[in-house]
Amino acid sequence: MTLSDEPHKLAGEIVNQLREAVGIEHVLTAPSELDQYSRCTIPWQRSCAAVVFPGSAEEVAQVVKIAGRHKIPIWPFSTGRNWGYGTTLATEHGAIVMILERMNRILEVNEELAYAVIEPGVTYEQLNAHLKEYRYKLWMDCIDGTPKGSVIGNALDRGVGETPYGDHFGNLCGLEVVLPEGELVQIGGALSGLKTWHTHKWGIGPYLEGLFSQSNMGIVTRAGLWLMPQPEAYNSFVFQINEERHVADVLDAFRQLALQGVITAKLHMINDFVSITLLTQRIVEDLPQGTGLTDADLANLRRKYRIARWSCGGGLYGTRAQVKVQRALLRKALRRYGKLMFISDARLAVIQRLIAGSKRSALFRAITENLLGTTLPIMEFAPYIHKVLQGIPTEHFVKHAYYRHRAPRPTQDVNPARDHCGLTWFAPILPLASGEVLPFLASCKQQFISHGFDFYVALLLMNPRSVICLMAIIYDREDEGQAARADDLYNELVTGMQAAGYQQYRAALSGWSRVFETAPELLVLNNRIKAALDPANIIAPGRYGIEASKRAI
Amino acid sequence: MTLSDEPHKLAGEIVNQLREAVGIEHVLTAPSELDQYSRCTIPWQRSCAAVVFPGSAEEVAQVVKIAGRHKIPIWPFSTGRNWGYGTTLATEHGAIVMILERMNRILEVNEELAYAVIEPGVTYEQLNAHLKEYRYKLWMDCIDGTPKGSVIGNALDRGVGETPYGDHFGNLCGLEVVLPEGELVQIGGALSGLKTWHTHKWGIGPYLEGLFSQSNMGIVTRAGLWLMPQPEAYNSFVFQINEERHVADVLDAFRQLALQGVITAKLHMINDFVSITLLTQRIVEDLPQGTGLTDADLANLRRKYRIARWSCGGGLYGTRAQVKVQRALLRKALRRYGKLMFISDARLAVIQRLIAGSKRSALFRAITENLLGTTLPIMEFAPYIHKVLQGIPTEHFVKHAYYRHRAPRPTQDVNPARDHCGLTWFAPILPLASGEVLPFLASCKQQFISHGFDFYVALLLMNPRSVICLMAIIYDREDEGQAARADDLYNELVTGMQAAGYQQYRAALSGWSRVFETAPELLVLNNRIKAALDPANIIAPGRYGIEASKRAI
Repeated sequence: MTLSDEPHKLAGEIVNQLREAVGIEHVLTAPSELDQYSRCTIPWQRSCAAVVFPGSAEEVAQVVKIAGRHKIPIWPFSTGRNWGYGTTLATEHGAIVMILERMNRILEVNEELAYAVIEPGVTYEQLNAHLKEYRYKLWMDCIDGTPKGSVIGNALDRGVGETPYGDHFGNLCGLEVVLPEGELVQIGGALSGLKTWHTHKWGIGPYLEGLFSQSNMGIVTRAGLWLMPQPEAYNSFVFQINEERHVADVLDAFRQLALQGVITAKLHMINDFVSITLLTQRIVEDLPQGTGLTDADLANLRRKYRIARWSCGGGLYGTRAQVKVQRALLRKALRRYGKLMFISDARLAVIQRLIAGSKRSALFRAITENLLGTTLPIMEFAPYIHKVLQGIPTEHFVKHAYYRHRAPRPTQDVNPARDHCGLTWFAPILPLASGEVLPFLASCKQQFISHGFDFYVALLLMNPRSVICLMAIIYDREDEGQAARADDLYNELVTGMQAAGYQQYRAALSGWSRVFETAPELLVLNNRIKAALDPANIIAPGRYGIEASKRAI
Repeated sequence: MTLSDEPHKLAGEIVNQLREAVGIEHVLTAPSELDQYSRCTIPWQRSCAAVVFPGSAEEVAQVVKIAGRHKIPIWPFSTGRNWGYGTTLATEHGAIVMILERMNRILEVNEELAYAVIEPGVTYEQLNAHLKEYRYKLWMDCIDGTPKGSVIGNALDRGVGETPYGDHFGNLCGLEVVLPEGELVQIGGALSGLKTWHTHKWGIGPYLEGLFSQSNMGIVTRAGLWLMPQPEAYNSFVFQINEERHVADVLDAFRQLALQGVITAKLHMINDFVSITLLTQRIVEDLPQGTGLTDADLANLRRKYRIARWSCGGGLYGTRAQVKVQRALLRKALRRYGKLMFISDARLAVIQRLIAGSKRSALFRAITENLLGTTLPIMEFAPYIHKVLQGIPTEHFVKHAYYRHRAPRPTQDVNPARDHCGLTWFAPILPLASGEVLPFLASCKQQFISHGFDFYVALLLMNPRSVICLMAIIYDREDEGQAARADDLYNELVTGMQAAGYQQYRAALSGWSRVFETAPELLVLNNRIKAALDPANIIAPGRYGIEASKRAI
């Protein structure tokens, strides 16, 4: 990390051209305005020279051409809420940051063929509200991150959601892209109005959409997105495991259930510490500030909140008969390993009444908690879990980022970057087999502990053969020593992961330079393509390690 | 089509270098040897200068480098049985044809994670035999084309099979590629042994595998392939529609069933003429040779063989309970439109006894045919349908190519290119909505009829939102007038398709120059990438219309 105290100013001529292109009010250059675009939760800081907000693909193209003429890098972001991965930071100081939030039109919803066409500024909450407002019988898939995240931005970074449509990149179909020299192309389709542009993913000829994900080959200004027809029946389920010895069997059972098509959702399985970060903060509990929780602390908190060692959540979708069969198959496969609970819409209403009653009466709460073997804070998760698994976004699960924060966390408008929280995501993906996953988790846990951090891991089923072991390094950003240790831990985790033969499914900015360390020939190939499309190296040079200037043949 | 009578010979120096690279017995140059690699069923003919059979990725790289030094195009094919699309033909005379059939190792089968790693010479029958021999509880997906087709070759051309794993490109995961200048890269992975190379499709950074499908950006020398765990229960089903007025409702029902996840197989729906081409030949029936069947001829043949106007086939897979639910849902959705029959393994055994009995005794046959309301030739389909839907390949469905052939078709070793059959595939893909599909089929049918051909269409569910309307132009290749008319028809079909806003999902060689007619900006992008990877334009220049030399910036 290199820091420079010099201001990064654009020449007046360039600022004027940008203002002409997108409108004077859509170009920020004052240091006070730029500050919020130079913040992230990872231990990294870069100052940009300007922030531009184009309102259309044509304006995006104009900005790209201006940047190209003056050889200044452009860093495009959809809405820039990619906390823990990079937010709106560039790899170097002095870039022009481009935010696409003004391009937030929902251009089409096709109910018959179950897709939407949207711009990159469209957020999860906006798309969900739109579907509900016009009573489309379609559900979107959301993340359990911020509702203000960009649907397209997350998909292009290959984020993962909740439902059977949770492979967000896999459910994009048909992209409009501004290339680095300003040309507009429709990938997988044609400018002339192809009717399968948003129904057939592969198009004809080479399948090129992949070039524009986790990369810097162009700026996506529009995309088709497949949606789930509202199913006849839906159940969410929660499964709690209290004994570590069962985890291996459960993981292998999940693989088999996923391969059989019984589990089609992007099942999440979180460890006890993840639950703790959602329920409380370190400043709330009587805990030492400098180090991580001891085993005894963890056990106390599990008891206090009645948290299981591992908690799993997922959804079942289909006709009533299909959901009934899936429930029976899940019960048969899992019941010997823990406590399995299904939540239907009807059951959710009961739970919500119990929550309301518990809030009104301490006696009612005590009886309810006792009868259900749980606590009110845990019960309060149920509505959020049930909703997020049907594509209704919530801020509820973003609170984890404030666990080591020194001030109480906000109850709404959660924004860990603005609030100087410390969070870096480390997101290795492994074969979905207990023999691979468990030894790896054990070794990562040791690395977390030895650096003074708590081991946070959420397992996300990417597909029936692969599982993301999503780890959060949550640190106190006000403590410089901790920030440096967080950075060290991240680097050591990457080193250990590579040595074990794994890679991340998605990488934070601070890890980009190492993405292709074990695959130099693939970096050369990427750089050659980058050089062909962006010879002046204008769009986000260094994103995922790829740069035209590093071309080597 | 331009023809040249000049022989296309390589300089002796080049032949010697090729022989040194792959072994003297693996280079063919004698005109008599080259003849069979210059034949195809489409109205197109090109003579190659040599055929080489490399035995490894290293030999592939050497051949590519030799070709690059001498600026001679290389046309790679896996096994070269891509009848109706191009077989082993190049766009121009004088190329070096590269056949990868010697590279036929099955490198790994991972039963736990349900994938195989294979080379491009591995055929459907070989992979199926291997899985059976070692009793893996895994099923592959095959095409209903030749069992001697290449699994990888078909997948890279984005062919479609039968089962839930029938999107062949979608089920490739992890490619090893020789680039046009001879470098070896592992796409989606790393040379260093990444453990998710064959379990996580997107890898990290830009997803590049798509660059190597329907293209000429490199030569795939190894690939991972996802396999289906043998399900607890399996049923095939056949559904027959006798009234045209029901077709729209059935198509829309299929979309809904596919969106609901009730139909997960790549359902096929064929018209009466497709059935006829499988059951008989024109020389067998008392029919005029010059033109197509009249409506009266078609009606007679439907009666004679008890063929429905439309016949559908698909498979149901899952646990016993899941298959039972799927059967009930299909029955409810379809029964009012036609005759639906499910075939389990047990029922298949009964059918096979009825077939055997019918062959032994005319009386038994008459009674059986009458009771079942079908004919022996139709009954004989059942075992093939049941098997192909569980990944067991058969030559049975390739016979259609001989329908207008002047000699009786072979009973085994079916090879329509060798036998000078006339067949061109026209493969548009449409949104899966009756309002799109039916008007388009009606207009294509008119074009077939006006050119003197029979309207052959098989609808293949590509995904829940898209359907391939696969049409075969079956013509008499010995009749030059017919071949010219077949070519005219193909071109008019392409023109009509483009005007209607559709494109092919996969194109025959004769259509490559028109693939990007309605998307010139996409051709420019493809050509720029081609130029970056293959500046000397060595690998299959012109494949899907893409050429480095046509680069335009």
